[in-house]
Amino acid sequence: MSSTDIFVGEVVGTAVLILLGGGVVAAVTFKRSKAYEAGWVAVAFGWGMAVLSGAYIATGVSGAHLNPAVTLGLAIEGGTAWSDVPLYLFSEMLGAIIGAVLVWLTYYGQFRYHLTTPPITGDELDHGSPTAASNEPGPVLGVFSTAPEIPHKLQNLVTEIIATFVLIIAILTQGLNDDGNGLGPLGALITALVVLAIGLSLGGPTGYAINPARDLGPRIVHALLPLPNKGSSDWQYAWVPVVGPLIGAALAGGLYNLAFAP
Amino acid sequence: MSSTDIFVGEVVGTAVLILLGGGVVAAVTFKRSKAYEAGWVAVAFGWGMAVLSGAYIATGVSGAHLNPAVTLGLAIEGGTAWSDVPLYLFSEMLGAIIGAVLVWLTYYGQFRYHLTTPPITGDELDHGSPTAASNEPGPVLGVFSTAPEIPHKLQNLVTEIIATFVLIIAILTQGLNDDGNGLGPLGALITALVVLAIGLSLGGPTGYAINPARDLGPRIVHALLPLPNKGSSDWQYAWVPVVGPLIGAALAGGLYNLAFAP
Amino acid sequence: MSSTDIFVGEVVGTAVLILLGGGVVAAVTFKRSKAYEAGWVAVAFGWGMAVLSGAYIATGVSGAHLNPAVTLGLAIEGGTAWSDVPLYLFSEMLGAIIGAVLVWLTYYGQFRYHLTTPPITGDELDHGSPTAASNEPGPVLGVFSTAPEIPHKLQNLVTEIIATFVLIIAILTQGLNDDGNGLGPLGALITALVVLAIGLSLGGPTGYAINPARDLGPRIVHALLPLPNKGSSDWQYAWVPVVGPLIGAALAGGLYNLAFAP
Amino acid sequence: MSSTDIFVGEVVGTAVLILLGGGVVAAVTFKRSKAYEAGWVAVAFGWGMAVLSGAYIATGVSGAHLNPAVTLGLAIEGGTAWSDVPLYLFSEMLGAIIGAVLVWLTYYGQFRYHLTTPPITGDELDHGSPTAASNEPGPVLGVFSTAPEIPHKLQNLVTEIIATFVLIIAILTQGLNDDGNGLGPLGALITALVVLAIGLSLGGPTGYAINPARDLGPRIVHALLPLPNKGSSDWQYAWVPVVGPLIGAALAGGLYNLAFAP
Repeated sequence: MSSTDIFVGEVVGTAVLILLGGGVVAAVTFKRSKAYEAGWVAVAFGWGMAVLSGAYIATGVSGAHLNPAVTLGLAIEGGTAWSDVPLYLFSEMLGAIIGAVLVWLTYYGQFRYHLTTPPITGDELDHGSPTAASNEPGPVLGVFSTAPEIPHKLQNLVTEIIATFVLIIAILTQGLNDDGNGLGPLGALITALVVLAIGLSLGGPTGYAINPARDLGPRIVHALLPLPNKGSSDWQYAWVPVVGPLIGAALAGGLYNLAFAP
Repeated sequence: MSSTDIFVGEVVGTAVLILLGGGVVAAVTFKRSKAYEAGWVAVAFGWGMAVLSGAYIATGVSGAHLNPAVTLGLAIEGGTAWSDVPLYLFSEMLGAIIGAVLVWLTYYGQFRYHLTTPPITGDELDHGSPTAASNEPGPVLGVFSTAPEIPHKLQNLVTEIIATFVLIIAILTQGLNDDGNGLGPLGALITALVVLAIGLSLGGPTGYAINPARDLGPRIVHALLPLPNKGSSDWQYAWVPVVGPLIGAALAGGLYNLAFAP
Repeated sequence: MSSTDIFVGEVVGTAVLILLGGGVVAAVTFKRSKAYEAGWVAVAFGWGMAVLSGAYIATGVSGAHLNPAVTLGLAIEGGTAWSDVPLYLFSEMLGAIIGAVLVWLTYYGQFRYHLTTPPITGDELDHGSPTAASNEPGPVLGVFSTAPEIPHKLQNLVTEIIATFVLIIAILTQGLNDDGNGLGPLGALITALVVLAIGLSLGGPTGYAINPARDLGPRIVHALLPLPNKGSSDWQYAWVPVVGPLIGAALAGGLYNLAFAP
Repeated sequence: MSSTDIFVGEVVGTAVLILLGGGVVAAVTFKRSKAYEAGWVAVAFGWGMAVLSGAYIATGVSGAHLNPAVTLGLAIEGGTAWSDVPLYLFSEMLGAIIGAVLVWLTYYGQFRYHLTTPPITGDELDHGSPTAASNEPGPVLGVFSTAPEIPHKLQNLVTEIIATFVLIIAILTQGLNDDGNGLGPLGALITALVVLAIGLSLGGPTGYAINPARDLGPRIVHALLPLPNKGSSDWQYAWVPVVGPLIGAALAGGLYNLAFAP
């Protein structure tokens, strides 16, 4: 796998992952959206199918990590060379940032409507200018990054570690029953359904980042975008969805090498 | 692949796609339907499984484009000959028109009930005649074609471009990890789940046409059907879900040739 | 395929299909059920996964028709010998009857609770005896058989014809892209998702019987079971979900032979 | 398959199964969860995808029983040696206990919040101490084990027998159409969807244990965890979801040997 392949696959695949993942949160959050209040089942399926889409696009190109925790787990297991890790991480972060910008472009009208008081109508999109503080800027960060329901960093860290451990052990054991040629279409589907499982079952407390790039990249975009009334980027929480997934991946990689590897 | 194969596969496959896709909107929109108000999750799954059904039927016959944007993307990539493009487009449009008529036949009673004031009962279907303007003719166009939540053509165009780009890049990269014999059953499933992803995540602003035939064919049927109180066919918006998907497909085809093609 | 294989596969497979299909309607209909009011998405997925389960069990044994309309379509296409058709139909009807009885056994407590006024508590199941007419006996037939939202036999027939046509054309075209060894696991999955599509999109008007045995077998059970206050078995409608699916299957088989067959 | 393989696969696979399965009940039950009140569709998909995840992880290692009823069915069928059964059962119970503890760790904050009156805030997690009886301790057992909607042991037993019979016959017939190398990725997916079917269709009356370890292991954890106001572990019901699934598995194994085995 060439450096170009890694770069192209990870940037495009991660961008699609974040575009669709952030997109489903926008879809259920914003009032002028056909999916408004479609609920958690929609969110969990949206993120699961976002993984499917991104992984399917990238699997034949870069192996479809799309997630620094996956890269770390595969490096510990030996499937990915440590020398390729920096390029994977850089490409994943770049893709995540691009994806978050694309969410904003896709839902530009909804962002404008949501952040402007009084809400502007569609016809006013060209002319309207934000004039007052929004009463509910909170959801806008949610379109980009995760936030815990009960803020408590140690507890939130434990939740992210456990959730990511499930993802990485499932990905590592693929080599035991697949043909070993990377994810492939069926592997992309199974991984997507594991992410659906994690979302439905373990996403309740923290919103299941389980991917440092998925959380950090869009948070940077949130901080940089010139959105009025967008609220805090909540940087004091930002390390939890980065460190937790990496610990979970390291634990899964260690357990795999200890007990599963042939 | 013979011209007959292309014609049969695309007409039948696209008709099934639109029958099931328009059908799910009818199912959740009309009051005398068992799926009334089943919500956006039902709509997104309905369209996704509509793609699965149509693609599965046509994949072994015509390659299952079912979408002028797919045809354009594959022509740019080289998998489809430019000389076959007109037949694909014609067959897709014809299939879409047939599918929209079948939706009307399937939900004929519901259309009658919905468009007549006072609403007629089932027993009156044979005898009842519309007598007054309906208070809510709007949803009837929704059974056929898409409409934006916040009408703003440039913004809506951007949304359709981005959403279609995801679809086409996913279809084009199939050749990198499939056996190359067209979609096949697993390919049809994956493509359907990508459309589910797009519906959940990017369908909020415009209803994700992502397919010129899907929008234009049924809009023509809406304009021609002798439905009382059916409301406007909204022709001034009609070019957006045609041009947007074609631009998105061209961008995806270009990126594929530039960065992904082996 | 031996006669014993056909008998075993079709009886067990159809029984599982009807047990799970009738079961999901019971699950969302009865008040003392954890799935009470889970909605149409649950019903459509329940029936889809019922097809998956029954088809998967029977595919390696009898080819998993589980539906007289499928048998008719395959006989017209040539994949099933006309001499095997009577055994298929008999086994499918027997399986459907067994499945409907199993629904009653699984939800015996819920039936008792629902049909007895005043509703009995769980502790009273052994001792309580129905004493008064229930106010809502209607849903009990719905656990067994279909009923139209707008009763109009010609319209309902058209809906069943169209919906069954989609199912049968999808099954017949499988031979064009599968390896031809019957459904197999992936084929069972695809067929199940086509049924999910039909449920979401075309099930609104009539409840999508699309299978004569699925409707007639349980209706017989409804008529015979000694349930107090069970209400009418609605025999005047019973021919529609038998004749409609058979017409749809014949049309699909004819179109397949005309336009699709290699 | 070595004893170590059985132990590792069953412990890790069952732990993941119970972590995700118990997790989804916690996710929809607890108020400070993003999935609060997501409903039965979420629960049924959560358990189905929990099976997918656990089975996928373990299939290449231990064959992915994850369930004493599966072990019993396969022993009767002959695919699993009777001498391996004790190790399977022990590993499944140990995995289930570990999984239930992981649910508690993942939702530690939510348990604290739910069981403490007045509810503590996130900031109080370190300092708050339970001071009063909760008004609703019931749901906490539901996060661990099943309970019937209408308590009646014979009826509940029948429901568990029927539901487990469907699961085991589906697993046993896999050998007739798979390549015979254990579940594999596609087999894990199909089994997961059969469990989804059972959950949607047959889970209404008893919550579908269909797995003695799934119910008994977490019930032991519920009894042992030092949770204030946790309520009864309902030991008088505990034998039903153990005995019922074993009877269902024995019946399925017997029918398979009698009528299906080649």
